[in-house]
Amino acid sequence: MHFKVGLLGLGTVGAGLAEVFLRKNETIAEQIGCPISLAKVLVRDLDKPRLVDLPPSMLTTRPEDILDDPDIHIVVEALGGEEPAYTYIQRAIRNRKHIVTPNKEVIAKHGPDILDLARRYNGDVHYEASVGGGIPLIAAFKQDLVANDIRQIRAIINGTTNYILTRMDTAGLPFDAALREAQELGYAEPDPRNDVDGTDAAYKLAILAALAFQIRAAPEDIYREGITELTPADFAYARAMGYAIKLLAIGRRQGNAVELRVHPTLVPREALLARVEGAFNAVEVEGDLTGKVVFYGRGAGARPTASALLADIIDIAQDVLRRYAEHTPRLLIDPSRRRLAMADVESAYYLRLMAVDEPGVLAFVAQTLADAEVSVASIVQRIATTDGRPAEIVIVTHPTRESHAQRVIERLRASAKLLAVPRPMRVEAE
Amino acid sequence: MHFKVGLLGLGTVGAGLAEVFLRKNETIAEQIGCPISLAKVLVRDLDKPRLVDLPPSMLTTRPEDILDDPDIHIVVEALGGEEPAYTYIQRAIRNRKHIVTPNKEVIAKHGPDILDLARRYNGDVHYEASVGGGIPLIAAFKQDLVANDIRQIRAIINGTTNYILTRMDTAGLPFDAALREAQELGYAEPDPRNDVDGTDAAYKLAILAALAFQIRAAPEDIYREGITELTPADFAYARAMGYAIKLLAIGRRQGNAVELRVHPTLVPREALLARVEGAFNAVEVEGDLTGKVVFYGRGAGARPTASALLADIIDIAQDVLRRYAEHTPRLLIDPSRRRLAMADVESAYYLRLMAVDEPGVLAFVAQTLADAEVSVASIVQRIATTDGRPAEIVIVTHPTRESHAQRVIERLRASAKLLAVPRPMRVEAE
Repeated sequence: MHFKVGLLGLGTVGAGLAEVFLRKNETIAEQIGCPISLAKVLVRDLDKPRLVDLPPSMLTTRPEDILDDPDIHIVVEALGGEEPAYTYIQRAIRNRKHIVTPNKEVIAKHGPDILDLARRYNGDVHYEASVGGGIPLIAAFKQDLVANDIRQIRAIINGTTNYILTRMDTAGLPFDAALREAQELGYAEPDPRNDVDGTDAAYKLAILAALAFQIRAAPEDIYREGITELTPADFAYARAMGYAIKLLAIGRRQGNAVELRVHPTLVPREALLARVEGAFNAVEVEGDLTGKVVFYGRGAGARPTASALLADIIDIAQDVLRRYAEHTPRLLIDPSRRRLAMADVESAYYLRLMAVDEPGVLAFVAQTLADAEVSVASIVQRIATTDGRPAEIVIVTHPTRESHAQRVIERLRASAKLLAVPRPMRVEAE
Repeated sequence: MHFKVGLLGLGTVGAGLAEVFLRKNETIAEQIGCPISLAKVLVRDLDKPRLVDLPPSMLTTRPEDILDDPDIHIVVEALGGEEPAYTYIQRAIRNRKHIVTPNKEVIAKHGPDILDLARRYNGDVHYEASVGGGIPLIAAFKQDLVANDIRQIRAIINGTTNYILTRMDTAGLPFDAALREAQELGYAEPDPRNDVDGTDAAYKLAILAALAFQIRAAPEDIYREGITELTPADFAYARAMGYAIKLLAIGRRQGNAVELRVHPTLVPREALLARVEGAFNAVEVEGDLTGKVVFYGRGAGARPTASALLADIIDIAQDVLRRYAEHTPRLLIDPSRRRLAMADVESAYYLRLMAVDEPGVLAFVAQTLADAEVSVASIVQRIATTDGRPAEIVIVTHPTRESHAQRVIERLRASAKLLAVPRPMRVEAE
C-alpha cells in the first residue's frame, strides 16, 4: 500500500502542511508503516508565487483532478469558508475518500451531516485542527474523556481577541490601538470582524459542544457578544476587584439543557484561564471522573495546524492499514538515542551559602565561581543576625555545566569561610 | 460480540474502576457499539470488606481464573508494583488478552518488552493511567503529537510532592509539617519515600521519554533528587528572586543525547508551571510544530484513574470491532439535548454605571437591583472628578438569571440619574 494525499488550497494552512509533509515524509511513512506522498494540490492560479516550493506537475486548478482521482485516498480540505469547501468534501466522500479538515465553519455548520455521509461510505472525517490549532483536543474528547459525563467547558479559543485583551490589560491600550497592534504583528486579519465579534469562537464552541454534550447546535444560535465595546476603565475596575477579562466560550450542561455562550467574562486573576496570555488558547473541560482538565497551547499558525493535520492523516492511514492486517502499534525505540550524562547537562543554579561573618567571604565566593567559569546572574546577601543565624549568600548563576557547578560546590564546602553549603537547586527559564 | 473484562486487584484503583464500570455500563457499551461486562476480579481475600459492592461469584483468589480464561478479552492489571504484576501481564498476553494497566513501575521498567511481546501475540497494551491520572497524555503522544520532533518535556507529575511544596511555599511550613498535613489529607502515603525522593516521578519520566524521544531509559539510571532537604528559607529566597520551587521531571533532546532528570527546580513565578498548585499535575511538551503545549489536571485519585482505564478499555474494544467490520465512529448526537435559552442562564454580572453627581443615586441603583432580586457581591464607587469625568458605580452581583439582569439594565438605562450604562459583563468563578 502507498497512501496518496490530495490537498485543496495552498494558502497559509495548505502551504504549511505541504512544507512539513515534504520535509518529514520519511518520519511520517515510518509512523504509518508504509509510504505516503502528497500527490496533487488544488490552487486557484498556477502562476502565483508560493510559500512552498512544489513541482509544477503537482499543481492543478481543477478540483476533479483530486476529488475524482481513484488513486487518492485522503483529501485535506484547506480552502476555509463554507463553500465550495462543503460541496467538495461531500463529493470526495462519495468518491470513497477520507477527509481531513481544519475548517471550523464547515464542521460547526455541517459536521454531523458530513460524518453521517462518511459513515454511509465507510469513510473517516478528522478535524483536529478545527479547534485549538495544534493542541490535542478533539482526539481527547473522542478517546480519553469518552467515559466522562462532561459538565462544563470554558475555553479561550480565539487567539486574536486574547491578544487584544492581554494588551488592553497589561499596556492599558484602548481597543482600536490593541487591534491595530495585533494586525501589525499578524495576530489579527485585515478584516477582523469574525474574530472580534465572537463568531469564530462560536464556531469552535459548536464543535466542542457536539463532542462534549452530544448536542447539535447551529453556530448562529449560540449567544455571543464581542469585545469591541470594552474600555481601559473596565480593565482597571476588573483588576481592582481581582479579575482579568477574557473572551470565554462557555458550555454547561444542566440535565438535558445546555448553555452555550461566547462573551467577555470576568475571571478571578488566580484562575488558570486568567493567566492565558497573548495569542495562546486554553480549553478547560470538567468531567465527572477526571474533574477539571486543561489543554493549553498555540491555537493557530501554519505549523501547529500542520501538526494537527498530519496527526489526522497518520491516524487515518494507520486505521486503514489495521483493516487490512492485524497490526499493533509498537513503541518505536531509536537505538541511537542515548542518555546524556548528568555531568554534561547544562543548567542555571541556585546556591545558598551560610557564611562566617568576616570580610572577604563574598570575594572568595565570587573568585571560586569565576575560577570554575560559572557566572552570576543575581545575588542576595543577608548579614548575620543577633539571634545567631549566620550570614547567608544566595546566588543564581547563568547556565553552566553540571560538572562545573559540582566543582564550585566542592571547593566552597572545603572552605572554612563557609559554615554550610546545602545542596544547590537548578533553575529553569520560562 | 460481547466483551469480557478481567480485573486484577481491588484496591483503590481497582475498586474505583469497578464502581464506575458497573454504574456506567450502558454508556460504555453504547460508546463501543456492543455489550461489555466485568466478568471476574482477582482479590487476595474473599471475605475482606470492599470499597465497592460486587456479587461474590465475581470474585476469585486464583489468578488463573482470569489469566487463563479464554472468554476474557481484556485484562486490567491494578495490582501495582513490579511483581507479580509483570508475570501476570506476560501470561495474559500469551493467552491472547489485551492489557490495560495504570502501573507506572512495570511500564517504566518493562514497557518496551511488554509491547514487543504483545506485538508477537497481536495484542494491545494501553497504559494511559500510568502517567498523569485522568489527564489525556499517552494518547496525545501516540496520536496528536506524532508528527512532531519533541524537543523538551518539563513536568510536574507527582501530586504528593507538589502538594508539600505548595504548602511550604504558601504557608511557610517546614518539610516535615507539610508532609504530615499531606498524609492526614490522603495526598501522601503512610510510607512516602517513593514520592518524596523522586522515584515515582522518575518512573513516569521514563515512560514519557520512550514516547517523546524514542529512548529506552531504565528508571534507576535517571538522575534524581528529592525534596526532603528543602527549607522555608529556600522558598523565601526563591520568592524574593521571582521564583517558585517545583519538583520537575525534565527531558530534553540534543541530537541523539537525551537529558533526563528529576529534581527540585526554581521556575519563574510567571511561568504556567509555577502556577500548578496542590495535588495537580501539569506536563509541558515542546514540539517543533506545535511549540509548547501544556496538559493540566488531577494526576491521581480513583476516579481520574478510572477515567483513563475506561478510555483504554473502550479504545481496545473499538479497535477489535474495527478488525471484524468496517466501522466509522460517528458523532453521537443525543436528540433530547437542547440549548438552554439565554434568558434562563445564570451568571454573576459586572455592571459599570456612569451616574450624575447628586445624592440618592446609589440608593436608587441598590433599590433597582433589589426589586429585580439581584444581590450585590461587591461595589466600587468613584466620585466625579474636576476634569469632567462623571461619577462611576461599579458592581459585581451574585449569580442571577440573565432575564433578571436584563430587567435591571433596562430600568437603569431608563433613569435620568444615570448618564450611561454600558453593556454589562458576566463573571465566572474559578
